[in-house]
Amino acid sequence: MSAPAIEFWFDFGSSYSYLSMMRIEAEAAKAGVVVQWKPFLLGPVFQALGWSTSPFVLQKEKGEYAWKDMQRQCRKYGLPWRQPSRFPRAAVPPTRVALANAGRPWVGEFCRRVMQLNFAEDRDIDRPETTLEILRGMDLPAEHIWEEAQSEQWRARLRAQTAAARWRGVFGAPTFFVGREMFWGNDRLDDALACCARSGSTVEKAAD
Amino acid sequence: MSAPAIEFWFDFGSSYSYLSMMRIEAEAAKAGVVVQWKPFLLGPVFQALGWSTSPFVLQKEKGEYAWKDMQRQCRKYGLPWRQPSRFPRAAVPPTRVALANAGRPWVGEFCRRVMQLNFAEDRDIDRPETTLEILRGMDLPAEHIWEEAQSEQWRARLRAQTAAARWRGVFGAPTFFVGREMFWGNDRLDDALACCARSGSTVEKAAD
Repeated sequence: MSAPAIEFWFDFGSSYSYLSMMRIEAEAAKAGVVVQWKPFLLGPVFQALGWSTSPFVLQKEKGEYAWKDMQRQCRKYGLPWRQPSRFPRAAVPPTRVALANAGRPWVGEFCRRVMQLNFAEDRDIDRPETTLEILRGMDLPAEHIWEEAQSEQWRARLRAQTAAARWRGVFGAPTFFVGREMFWGNDRLDDALACCARSGSTVEKAAD
Repeated sequence: MSAPAIEFWFDFGSSYSYLSMMRIEAEAAKAGVVVQWKPFLLGPVFQALGWSTSPFVLQKEKGEYAWKDMQRQCRKYGLPWRQPSRFPRAAVPPTRVALANAGRPWVGEFCRRVMQLNFAEDRDIDRPETTLEILRGMDLPAEHIWEEAQSEQWRARLRAQTAAARWRGVFGAPTFFVGREMFWGNDRLDDALACCARSGSTVEKAAD
């Protein structure tokens, strides 16, 4: 089985990644497109670009605007919204879980739950307990999944994934790739999906 | 006569302002909304924010991406596109003309012609001759309009307009205001128009 594929590069602390996360799986399905989940850490990418933190923190005016914009965008998409008390929020444990399980059918639901906690409930998603709670809530073997994701193998794979983001030219999140074509920002998700459906850029669907 | 009004803050050197410029008058008309033309100079705004030039120049990766994005966006909107050999291009003379004539019925057409020269024909829009050529091409009293716009009065008004942009919280272009609600970027033009049509934020229509 093969279908056109879109790569979705995201960071759980990124507010505009939240907007894409909550709709990409449904929109991709409508377009007949498969989502390839690409969790990574935006912090090291920003640092490599010479930015000590998010541009929304470094550029006060833009940052203040972005919170108002998020509020309006969430209203537009019908998404719950509560401004996180900490931004950008670190989220290493769930990022490792998402990476280690990027081919599982439940990864989309897991990622949406992480995002929902950060951007609708202002919960600390960097605490291991939060990730375990989400996995248990999904009736998954939480401890097993957790231990595997925290292994040295997946720590190294996350560093490699983040390096790959940098190497591919990613400078923010969300970022979408259709083949080598890069699209930046939630505002380009629809364009990226349309490009993907047109181009028929394919990937072998995972069997599980 | 009164109608809901949207303020359109733009800079003739701003690529994303080009995308909005070419469609705002038609889209606003469909939405029953009046456009208030707010030309200003983005350069001094960037400098006040501590940026020596456009973020697309300061941030190489983002800048390179933005050119690819512009190409795709122009294709999407059916607009001609040729990457300017100089960016950001200064455009003080036509900005003064647009400001001095912001209430005239021909200002939209004038502004579109300036943008078209910059972003589809790679012409130097900072040369006085270019502005005169546009005005003549529109069968307007070019010399008279030119001389008035270059007067000390309009030089001062342009400085004041640019200061107002800064004071209102503008940090990029295009920026739209519906009352006190600010929307940044061509990607928010549709949202801003919808908000405007809903809110009925009104302005007295100029009689001419």
